[in-house]
Amino acid sequence: MFEEKDSARTPVSELGEFKLIDHLTKHFKIHHDTTVKGIGDDAAVLQPKDKQQWVVTTDLLVEGVHFDLSYMPLKHLGYKAVMVNLSDVYAMNAEAKQLTVSIAASNRFPVEALEELYAGILAAANGYKVDVVGGDTTSSTSGLVISITALGCAPAEKITYRSGAKENDLLVLTGDLGAAYLGLQVLEREKQVFQVNPKAQPDLEPYSYLIERQLKPEARKDVPKLLDSLKVQPTAMIDISDGLSSEILHLCKHSQTGCNLYEEKIPLDPQVMATCEEFELDSTTIALSGGEDYELLFTIDADDFPKIKGNPNLTVIGHMTAASEGSHLITRANTKIPLIARGWDGMSQEEN
Amino acid sequence: MFEEKDSARTPVSELGEFKLIDHLTKHFKIHHDTTVKGIGDDAAVLQPKDKQQWVVTTDLLVEGVHFDLSYMPLKHLGYKAVMVNLSDVYAMNAEAKQLTVSIAASNRFPVEALEELYAGILAAANGYKVDVVGGDTTSSTSGLVISITALGCAPAEKITYRSGAKENDLLVLTGDLGAAYLGLQVLEREKQVFQVNPKAQPDLEPYSYLIERQLKPEARKDVPKLLDSLKVQPTAMIDISDGLSSEILHLCKHSQTGCNLYEEKIPLDPQVMATCEEFELDSTTIALSGGEDYELLFTIDADDFPKIKGNPNLTVIGHMTAASEGSHLITRANTKIPLIARGWDGMSQEEN
Repeated sequence: MFEEKDSARTPVSELGEFKLIDHLTKHFKIHHDTTVKGIGDDAAVLQPKDKQQWVVTTDLLVEGVHFDLSYMPLKHLGYKAVMVNLSDVYAMNAEAKQLTVSIAASNRFPVEALEELYAGILAAANGYKVDVVGGDTTSSTSGLVISITALGCAPAEKITYRSGAKENDLLVLTGDLGAAYLGLQVLEREKQVFQVNPKAQPDLEPYSYLIERQLKPEARKDVPKLLDSLKVQPTAMIDISDGLSSEILHLCKHSQTGCNLYEEKIPLDPQVMATCEEFELDSTTIALSGGEDYELLFTIDADDFPKIKGNPNLTVIGHMTAASEGSHLITRANTKIPLIARGWDGMSQEEN
Repeated sequence: MFEEKDSARTPVSELGEFKLIDHLTKHFKIHHDTTVKGIGDDAAVLQPKDKQQWVVTTDLLVEGVHFDLSYMPLKHLGYKAVMVNLSDVYAMNAEAKQLTVSIAASNRFPVEALEELYAGILAAANGYKVDVVGGDTTSSTSGLVISITALGCAPAEKITYRSGAKENDLLVLTGDLGAAYLGLQVLEREKQVFQVNPKAQPDLEPYSYLIERQLKPEARKDVPKLLDSLKVQPTAMIDISDGLSSEILHLCKHSQTGCNLYEEKIPLDPQVMATCEEFELDSTTIALSGGEDYELLFTIDADDFPKIKGNPNLTVIGHMTAASEGSHLITRANTKIPLIARGWDGMSQEEN
């Protein structure tokens, strides 16, 4: 896709590796006084703030496994790679502060392609006010690999683990589900149409929200701040990367609880509902197993319900139960069926 | 190599990704009270110590670019991948504390191969007392990629940058140089001999030190402690990953100094000298450009010389000059030739 956009193709070898890094990273700004030293030494140096802990998370994105450059523009890929990591920081109820970004790219990628990728990373870093403090740029024998590590901080008492949910806590979700997965289905379909008839002009307007959620997801930076302003300390939290059912089961397992999830409460965008009908897919299945939504799922003490009631960003979708009761979906027909983890991406698993 | 060692070949798909991670990481121990939460949540959580700063560094190792599995056993590769990162932490004069480890591997690698790789990572983590606090394990379409991020800490006044050297400071090196590069040459030669005659039994004893430096390098964890006990605060420091000349030039550039390096002072192991003769290589060129030695190079105030004099771990190899004087090698014949950066690995460049 990027190759069509620009006819310039400067091989990395022409610029030289040292200059390449200066070139790619020269627009990065430092936003935080916790960053004492960013790019340019053996390691970055960070200054902790009083009584704050650090959180650290890392993700590896591999071409052909996590992304397909035939419909994912490189700039969007750079942006998304940052979001995936920031989402994990926010899921600890922490504020994201720093990133390291490592890239391995084959000689298929000219300097202009890496510029596009870094433009997306820069847009994400500036938009979310995080400092790119280091990384590694290297060649690969095939394809593109992006490895990002994100750091954030928060006072110890704010940091929220997967393990703190208790029986009767309410299960709360930000935003809506299923759109990113459906966006991928739409893009896959258009790719096949394009392969058959390259002159076809698809009308993607009815899928605009779905495609944006797939190609330019946003991490919920606002949520830790919102919860703080509402004076709500979540008891457990996780981000939705693999699909709602899988993430709920993580909370239940770590917190040693069960849960009841109410099908009718699961928030869906109208485009999700319309596209599920068109594709003859069950919207609940998509919400439960779709993945890549990067919304946050958390539990709160039932006494905190009045503080979040009516907030348009937050939906109560169920409640935690005793572990012995198991984890269930309560359907619209009021039947109770066991929740099963069936993530969107069975090939990848983060350790944190 | 690992495929010959063990006939068992369990595909990753058979174990399942969730169980794979539990399986691979179950032996990791937590050594530090700064690690509040390791593997198992959206992010690891770290507790800073009073008045300590954190350092963060990351490296990406790609099969076919940074390593060749035909002579690098996977266990050694895991060990070395950790050393490369720890070396950067020690080069800040800091103590290494935590690691994240991300792996992408194609289906060419069965569970037993990943076990070998993790066994090397575990040996390094235990030997150097660092906590593996997170990571990511994913499939790749071809080959093996290892991305490691290392964290460490030290009081702010101990942390040593590349930029602090002053005119007349002494240039000091730990250990000796050139062995890792020559080890690689020996292994490359044996690989070619093996391809011609698989029954050849090479005698590698004369190269044992060289091969060990290539296949099982050790990072200089001892040096920050040694300097502390000698009450020496280095003014600038860097680790030798790309070759002495390139690293000296980094120090000069960041510190805005020149330097004089004395050829006769460069420490070489007897095996390095003998093998250079055999291969008809100039030992000074190998020391200057060889790379992968993971020794530390630092500068100290000349007044501190009595504190390090005679220490068998440390060699004064030159001194810093005014930037206007440039950076030179003073040869045994007492001629002065400009230092040129010519690293061993022109294909990779770290940002920190």
